[in-house]
Amino acid sequence: MKKIINHPDHFVDEMIDALLLAHPGWVKAVTADRRALVRADGSRDGKVGIVTGGGSGHLPGFLGYVGRGLASGVAVGNVFSSPSSEQIYEATKAVNGGAGVLYLYGNYGGDVFNFDLAADLAEADGIDTRTVLVSDDVASAPAERRQERRGVAGMVFGFKCAGAAAERGDSLDDVARIAAKANGATRTMGVGLSPTILPAAGKPTFTLPDGEMEIGIGIHGEPGTHRGKLESADAIADRLAGEVLRDLGAPARSRVALLVNGLGATPLEELYLLYRRAAGAIAAAGLTVARSYVGEYVTSLEMAGASITAMLLDDELETLLEAPARSPFWREGWPTAGGVQ
Amino acid sequence: MKKIINHPDHFVDEMIDALLLAHPGWVKAVTADRRALVRADGSRDGKVGIVTGGGSGHLPGFLGYVGRGLASGVAVGNVFSSPSSEQIYEATKAVNGGAGVLYLYGNYGGDVFNFDLAADLAEADGIDTRTVLVSDDVASAPAERRQERRGVAGMVFGFKCAGAAAERGDSLDDVARIAAKANGATRTMGVGLSPTILPAAGKPTFTLPDGEMEIGIGIHGEPGTHRGKLESADAIADRLAGEVLRDLGAPARSRVALLVNGLGATPLEELYLLYRRAAGAIAAAGLTVARSYVGEYVTSLEMAGASITAMLLDDELETLLEAPARSPFWREGWPTAGGVQ
Repeated sequence: MKKIINHPDHFVDEMIDALLLAHPGWVKAVTADRRALVRADGSRDGKVGIVTGGGSGHLPGFLGYVGRGLASGVAVGNVFSSPSSEQIYEATKAVNGGAGVLYLYGNYGGDVFNFDLAADLAEADGIDTRTVLVSDDVASAPAERRQERRGVAGMVFGFKCAGAAAERGDSLDDVARIAAKANGATRTMGVGLSPTILPAAGKPTFTLPDGEMEIGIGIHGEPGTHRGKLESADAIADRLAGEVLRDLGAPARSRVALLVNGLGATPLEELYLLYRRAAGAIAAAGLTVARSYVGEYVTSLEMAGASITAMLLDDELETLLEAPARSPFWREGWPTAGGVQ
Repeated sequence: MKKIINHPDHFVDEMIDALLLAHPGWVKAVTADRRALVRADGSRDGKVGIVTGGGSGHLPGFLGYVGRGLASGVAVGNVFSSPSSEQIYEATKAVNGGAGVLYLYGNYGGDVFNFDLAADLAEADGIDTRTVLVSDDVASAPAERRQERRGVAGMVFGFKCAGAAAERGDSLDDVARIAAKANGATRTMGVGLSPTILPAAGKPTFTLPDGEMEIGIGIHGEPGTHRGKLESADAIADRLAGEVLRDLGAPARSRVALLVNGLGATPLEELYLLYRRAAGAIAAAGLTVARSYVGEYVTSLEMAGASITAMLLDDELETLLEAPARSPFWREGWPTAGGVQ
């Protein structure tokens, strides 16, 4: 095991410790265990709150997408494990500004169970909540059962668009509508080249013989749709972008946002090679890449691999995507002075 | 070999292709081979140009640090190989605004040879040049032969400070003085956990048995100062930060910038664990962490490992570090609208 860690039991708490230390003024803990965190500048009266959450091991996801113009709070679980309903509930109360709270997170059983419990607790307090599940992973269920799909890298477009809507003062119904619209317009497909090792388990989450790849892999190593010999960057991009575009079914001359996401161990150079071919496939389909994102947005610890995401844009989504945002992991359009480093 | 590439001979050109495609309006090529690139907004009369360069395989280094408030141009070599003197010379001419050009790059033999040749060509054209070599790697030579040290992740502080000085209109002598001052105030020490595989060679640059680490490793896999059993994150951070602080010899109550850099395959979570302990060591030494940087700044393809860098600040360097900057890989303080994505 080639991991730079201390005791596995302290992994998540030390990570949170470090994030708070490295980025003062960004988020603050609202529970004693520091697993519920919200924007340090607090809730704003009349503003919709957005709470996300999920297991650890996906940095910058989920915690990294709390910030101005992004999510307002997060509940942080153990590695690849759901946070508790109490942690979600505490984040909910802390971000509530009287206009309600949107729950926006990936479609995983444990998370759904605990967020739903938190929603009941919040409702009893008179806090109105809505839930939008991110379900962008094309490989995880066929199109006719789209609501069963898992949420992967495309969740960042949801945080960005819903966060911008909340920031400009949209109502809870509108913020939820926009999150659902962003999710409905987003498709992702991934490839894995090597497994993740959970700190506590000390062994790989799955096995993949050297020189093989798994197309459609999930961000926790969930099985994909095809396993075979490792192919060229262009062949892999053709597979991923092909599935994404087929499932998205964007009308010709549409504009799309293109995200090539690294799962952890894959070099930035290789992500750009995938980007190059995916952008070519998009152009060949008669579409325009309006905005590009290449880097590590939602990872799976040290898994080698990547995913390709496309979001079909309309004027509303494109405006929200371009709006200012700021966290240590996503910066757009606001000056630094006095803000988060 | 677990690499997402096409033919190894096309690796660098396809990467440049992708970078130009993904980030329109950022840089433009000034040679037919596209290995010399400069800011797309061109040179400015009376403004000092800064040209950097080096081998590929280090993204965001070097190309990623061309931008507003950063370097003005770059020459891009093959993987881990120097660019040619002609490529450097073409970048020099393109960024020259009549106020001279600073060469700022890592201290490696091939790069020094070719940059010096380019300086002669530029001089013959009447372009005044200065050279500052980045030499922050503590492990690569003892303190009394500091000028022999290699340049590693600490180079980003040089680009940032010198770039901000050039942006505000400092003279060539001043920009060179600031680059030298930033380099003189910066120390780095790295650790490697697994080797890099060069695309063309298809085999590891060095071997490291599973479960071992190499302290002091260079960004091309140059041998370090200690090889042994992999230790905990805290023990590794103590080693790296200890060497860095000992060599830096900062007076008590000084302010420092702290950078924890990932070499490629190490998860962001693990970088934050190193940050946590390094920040603690800095505080224990009576110093203050004024600015924090955690992420992949100068990589070594898919090498697993990290480095810790500290720069001793004074008011001048801290002001320059905080100044606006913008490239797709470094954003500080300027609005997005109409700019680089």
